[in-house]
Amino acid sequence: MTGNWEKVIKSGGGSNAAWKLLKTGASGLVMLFVLLGLVGIGHAQEPPVSEATEGCLPCHGSVSPGIMYDWENSFHSRTTPADALLKDKLARRVSADSIPGHLMTTTVGCAECHTMNPEKHNDTFDHNGYQVHTVVTPEDCATCHPVEKGQYEKNIMSYAHINLTNNPVYHSLIVSINGFQDFDGASINLVDPDELTEFESCLYCHGTEVMVQGTEARETILGEMEFPVLSGWPNQGVGRLNPDGSMGSCTACHTRHQFSIQMARKPYTCSECHKGPDVPGYKVYEVSKHGNIFSSLGKNWDFEEVPWVAGKSFTAPTCAGCHVSLLVDGGGEAVIERSHQMNDRIWWRILGVIYAHPHPISPNTAIIRNKAGLPLATELTGEPAAEYLIDQDEMQSRRDRMRRVCLSCHSSQWVDNQFVRFENTIKTTNDMTLTATKILSTAWEKGAAQGLPQGANIFDEAIEKKWVEQWLFYANSIRYASAMAGADYGVFANGRWYLSKNIQEMRDWLQFKLKEDSHKK
Amino acid sequence: MTGNWEKVIKSGGGSNAAWKLLKTGASGLVMLFVLLGLVGIGHAQEPPVSEATEGCLPCHGSVSPGIMYDWENSFHSRTTPADALLKDKLARRVSADSIPGHLMTTTVGCAECHTMNPEKHNDTFDHNGYQVHTVVTPEDCATCHPVEKGQYEKNIMSYAHINLTNNPVYHSLIVSINGFQDFDGASINLVDPDELTEFESCLYCHGTEVMVQGTEARETILGEMEFPVLSGWPNQGVGRLNPDGSMGSCTACHTRHQFSIQMARKPYTCSECHKGPDVPGYKVYEVSKHGNIFSSLGKNWDFEEVPWVAGKSFTAPTCAGCHVSLLVDGGGEAVIERSHQMNDRIWWRILGVIYAHPHPISPNTAIIRNKAGLPLATELTGEPAAEYLIDQDEMQSRRDRMRRVCLSCHSSQWVDNQFVRFENTIKTTNDMTLTATKILSTAWEKGAAQGLPQGANIFDEAIEKKWVEQWLFYANSIRYASAMAGADYGVFANGRWYLSKNIQEMRDWLQFKLKEDSHKK
Amino acid sequence: MTGNWEKVIKSGGGSNAAWKLLKTGASGLVMLFVLLGLVGIGHAQEPPVSEATEGCLPCHGSVSPGIMYDWENSFHSRTTPADALLKDKLARRVSADSIPGHLMTTTVGCAECHTMNPEKHNDTFDHNGYQVHTVVTPEDCATCHPVEKGQYEKNIMSYAHINLTNNPVYHSLIVSINGFQDFDGASINLVDPDELTEFESCLYCHGTEVMVQGTEARETILGEMEFPVLSGWPNQGVGRLNPDGSMGSCTACHTRHQFSIQMARKPYTCSECHKGPDVPGYKVYEVSKHGNIFSSLGKNWDFEEVPWVAGKSFTAPTCAGCHVSLLVDGGGEAVIERSHQMNDRIWWRILGVIYAHPHPISPNTAIIRNKAGLPLATELTGEPAAEYLIDQDEMQSRRDRMRRVCLSCHSSQWVDNQFVRFENTIKTTNDMTLTATKILSTAWEKGAAQGLPQGANIFDEAIEKKWVEQWLFYANSIRYASAMAGADYGVFANGRWYLSKNIQEMRDWLQFKLKEDSHKK
Repeated sequence: MTGNWEKVIKSGGGSNAAWKLLKTGASGLVMLFVLLGLVGIGHAQEPPVSEATEGCLPCHGSVSPGIMYDWENSFHSRTTPADALLKDKLARRVSADSIPGHLMTTTVGCAECHTMNPEKHNDTFDHNGYQVHTVVTPEDCATCHPVEKGQYEKNIMSYAHINLTNNPVYHSLIVSINGFQDFDGASINLVDPDELTEFESCLYCHGTEVMVQGTEARETILGEMEFPVLSGWPNQGVGRLNPDGSMGSCTACHTRHQFSIQMARKPYTCSECHKGPDVPGYKVYEVSKHGNIFSSLGKNWDFEEVPWVAGKSFTAPTCAGCHVSLLVDGGGEAVIERSHQMNDRIWWRILGVIYAHPHPISPNTAIIRNKAGLPLATELTGEPAAEYLIDQDEMQSRRDRMRRVCLSCHSSQWVDNQFVRFENTIKTTNDMTLTATKILSTAWEKGAAQGLPQGANIFDEAIEKKWVEQWLFYANSIRYASAMAGADYGVFANGRWYLSKNIQEMRDWLQFKLKEDSHKK
Repeated sequence: MTGNWEKVIKSGGGSNAAWKLLKTGASGLVMLFVLLGLVGIGHAQEPPVSEATEGCLPCHGSVSPGIMYDWENSFHSRTTPADALLKDKLARRVSADSIPGHLMTTTVGCAECHTMNPEKHNDTFDHNGYQVHTVVTPEDCATCHPVEKGQYEKNIMSYAHINLTNNPVYHSLIVSINGFQDFDGASINLVDPDELTEFESCLYCHGTEVMVQGTEARETILGEMEFPVLSGWPNQGVGRLNPDGSMGSCTACHTRHQFSIQMARKPYTCSECHKGPDVPGYKVYEVSKHGNIFSSLGKNWDFEEVPWVAGKSFTAPTCAGCHVSLLVDGGGEAVIERSHQMNDRIWWRILGVIYAHPHPISPNTAIIRNKAGLPLATELTGEPAAEYLIDQDEMQSRRDRMRRVCLSCHSSQWVDNQFVRFENTIKTTNDMTLTATKILSTAWEKGAAQGLPQGANIFDEAIEKKWVEQWLFYANSIRYASAMAGADYGVFANGRWYLSKNIQEMRDWLQFKLKEDSHKK
Repeated sequence: MTGNWEKVIKSGGGSNAAWKLLKTGASGLVMLFVLLGLVGIGHAQEPPVSEATEGCLPCHGSVSPGIMYDWENSFHSRTTPADALLKDKLARRVSADSIPGHLMTTTVGCAECHTMNPEKHNDTFDHNGYQVHTVVTPEDCATCHPVEKGQYEKNIMSYAHINLTNNPVYHSLIVSINGFQDFDGASINLVDPDELTEFESCLYCHGTEVMVQGTEARETILGEMEFPVLSGWPNQGVGRLNPDGSMGSCTACHTRHQFSIQMARKPYTCSECHKGPDVPGYKVYEVSKHGNIFSSLGKNWDFEEVPWVAGKSFTAPTCAGCHVSLLVDGGGEAVIERSHQMNDRIWWRILGVIYAHPHPISPNTAIIRNKAGLPLATELTGEPAAEYLIDQDEMQSRRDRMRRVCLSCHSSQWVDNQFVRFENTIKTTNDMTLTATKILSTAWEKGAAQGLPQGANIFDEAIEKKWVEQWLFYANSIRYASAMAGADYGVFANGRWYLSKNIQEMRDWLQFKLKEDSHKK
């Protein structure tokens, strides 16, 4: 797994000499000369590194060896775009019809990505004569992977930053969670949160806006150099706003610098953002039969094979298997096409919403307005804002695509009955959310809490927070458990136990509060 | 790991032709002819598939390839009952003294299980001339594994459906959790849950009753065919009521269609049902020293070896190691016999009960009546309903069996001190449950909540739910942590922290409520 | 992985005979003779077992085979101290400059550790002519690993027992959690917990005091023998007080009897004590990018290599990688030295404390007194008890060491921005704890709860427990998530969601309580 280049520097006799030079800080020029000489050997067998990337490796192999080693283990370091294009359609990992000629015959190294589209990047800076940028973006990756980039743009994840911060309702949720609360001996005062807190909380997954704030000089092993100062950095959130104007971050799932399909196919990657009580996908998967099979037998599966053969490369699906990957049968024919529009096989929106509803049409959900004028896909009574949501036909198409995945291992009766249960659970969880909403509305009406009627933040008081937990945690967890057969996540592990208990506690709170209020008067 | 049969269809030149035939939907008869011809080759080296199973594979390899591949990876596809019977007693995986002759010399394939005992199965249907059933049951498996089936019948798990639904107290718990609650502006109205909700919540693990509701025609690649319509399906719960009258589901642990001993021995399998706050066995195991060793070193252990050599095949026990498996020492002598009566080495019942108590004698716990006439193994004061529970001698026998397992790696002082701590924790957790029960009883007496004295559901109000959490979550978690050395699950992770906090919150609730009530008057 | 000695006993023809002798309980003398004869063969190739250890194995291989097999898999069974000392400095696993001659040329077996320093051990007993002790301690291990023992003494973990039990404030926390609460129909009475409960709860991780309570005779396969009776045993807590007067337990991380560096480097080991809501390190790691990489790719990493090459032996750090291990770069030079003073790269104390503060100077935190005279490192207002805490220079040194680890794979801007966020989070979580403290203080002042002003236990009432959760669970979880990039553990998974909700609930409780109290009057 070691490229020829690195073999030369690190393991041979010459390698140690070169490494010592690196470490003793010999002048960049001499060092470069020695290294470039060594690199001449052996290029015949392994794909060559580009001249520009050869310029990166000597220093960065020393100052950040972990990155270099990681890249060495990547497919990018062992192949060329020209070779990648030669593969059969279903086995191809690149989706471009053609790739610019100057990139074709060398590996995909440091320079290939970090000097791509320099004119588009606000974070481009001059670095030893190269126009380098720090933040590699979907727009850069699209040079070889344009179809994936195009699909991802239709993915609700690509708007994860915008959908959160441009939606006044969700923004007030953020404030209620991340803001500072002060106590003056009687009442609580809520202050807006600072930016650094946002970066590491909501925006860690949803993505920050990465902006260039100027430049600064830093000491390096080659002397003082100028670098851009970035705010909102580091971040690999799925809806990151990038300095080239693009949205998203491929490295959220294809972790730098291996960018491995293996990692993206393993559920651990999804768990980074889909494990908490608000999005318990990974937890539910873990206790599902699928997750059990993965944990018990997965170590022998082939996570690198393209295309992926259902039942043969793996014997139970991971997150990617159901939601993203191209799957073929034993005869090599596609069961389902790959899609980086993650909701391509999802017809209901079940998470992060007050009521589950048909999936939004646009990935930009901040544009939605319900009849009450709120940026929500349903009324507070649960009625869908239908014009913004996919229709029955599109729901059917997505359900059919998922059904094709399921049928690889399950009978049609099995799958259809599973889907019927899921539809029932959509209804019952929405019903129980409506009950909680009725209690909250009563509290607002009677002034026990300050909410919509008062024009106040609807998320900052105790009973409002219990209402949020009803849909954001419990109803949601139950729907996940239903969709993925997660047993206790529908019952005692943030499931129906809490959904039912919460109603009682909301009612009790309301009664105590009304009594207290009446007493005051 | 590929059977000769499949090699022929899928990898050779003939294989592609056959596969294409399958996919293009050539007439079943022609296809069958081609395939049967191809199958003739190579049977000498690998055990043959039966003629009946040969009839299944061509279509089902196409319509549900995942199942076929999974079976190919199974031991069932690589051995015959005749060979299985030849093994040494301790190395045998079949427990029958003899197996019907017509099954002896072919592998255990589709037809062997899915056409077994057709006359007993309500779900039997005519399928291309075969009497096939969908739901394979412990009764079917008992053809080769009768001892395991017999032990499992004495296992409380086999009655998991009945114990939950036939017990009026537990049934009212289900209603309080899964039922719909409506709010009319002042009070809450509780409505019974629907069947589909039950199927995916409690009964997912406890098992559904699978019933034949009629038949229906479905379009297949061989044209329209008639199939039975099943309710309560799919399900692999441990106490499933099957269409042949049997109880349980072997595939709950031996996941279809590998039915692997490896999976059953890994803790992930148990975690499907034993991970939530009500049954945190897996979570406790994970943080125990045993779990740590398994997670850190388990990838190199031998999970297929029969018999299992304690300390050699594995260096720390999994769930199965302590509770189920046959273990031998380095000399090949049994340390402990295998038992599918999972409580064979368990003397206290610690989960799912108000007070921990000696294990019930009968796996059917719905027959128990305490002095108060309730179907509970203790009084509400904690006193055991002794006549329904194992006596001191039987407790001692079970403790001794478990002790033999422990002594493989621990000194007698180590084990005995561990057991003394566990007995102490049984007592202290029962005591803290009694305190919670006293508070609840006071609430009932004073009318702050409606419960036993009022003939009302004892689980549906806030303080009642807190009482349930005292025993079902916290006391239980502490007992698990004590039994399996799970550290924080006895303290902050649903342990004594919550056990002690809950008492304060129940008392506060009672005071607030009584004050509110007195104020009303 | 099997030592020559065991090969002879167990796998050869002679082996079975020897094993049978063991099992049939032939006289110890005959057995020993047979075995010692067999052992003569083959010593040339593999390092020999000492004569004393040869005396242990025959019986203990029979009565506790798991221990023997485990040791066989250890490095201790495959090397000698003499060989260990020959290695290059950075590759050495022993830190002693010299090791006593009589230990040099045999493996590190049973007798080497269990008969070390017999005169220091209160638990030493005569066992077949050997002065044996049960509890092997850091003092024993220091014979070969003195540097690690010295560092560990400066580690706060070594005082984990003392810091908990010798600190009156923390002791009252224990009482409030583990004590028995009785209800008399109106109020709650809190009773001190028993010792057995302590052993398996707090002291499971913090360590027990292991004491010799006398001796007793036990029946063995060699007849009746006398053994010491130990209280507080078993235990492998990090701050265990040992019968030789030493503190700590190496086996907490280097699990007996493999004592493997591989286990200590894997995060599962840390998770035994660092997973609960009070110390969620492992949970946060699991969902971090580092944890994802470990889970996805770690199975191919080299966890045994010494020294550990950052980026090459592994591509993402585990707990040990950041906090303990010696790391070298590709040229073999140290990036960071190994330290068993786990806070050597930690500058803030973020866990188990009311307010995060600079790390204590002494590992014995029970000596700290704030201005109010309480054994706490901050005032109740958050102001640090500075004289007991490391100064800015030492904070800087520790931060710099951690930074060197990070720079192996990250740019300086990446690391520095990450640290800036962390510092901000230290401040905001402390601020939110202060708000909770203000509410609690008001409750105490107004007599709604009984605390400091009343000289009462400050942890035993409902609002006090909510206050504890504010810092011990939520603020702490957020700080962990900030430090290790754990996303949802800073938001919905015990993060800011609960931190903000808790303030509202504390305020509501106070209002309800004050109303109730005013009503009483």
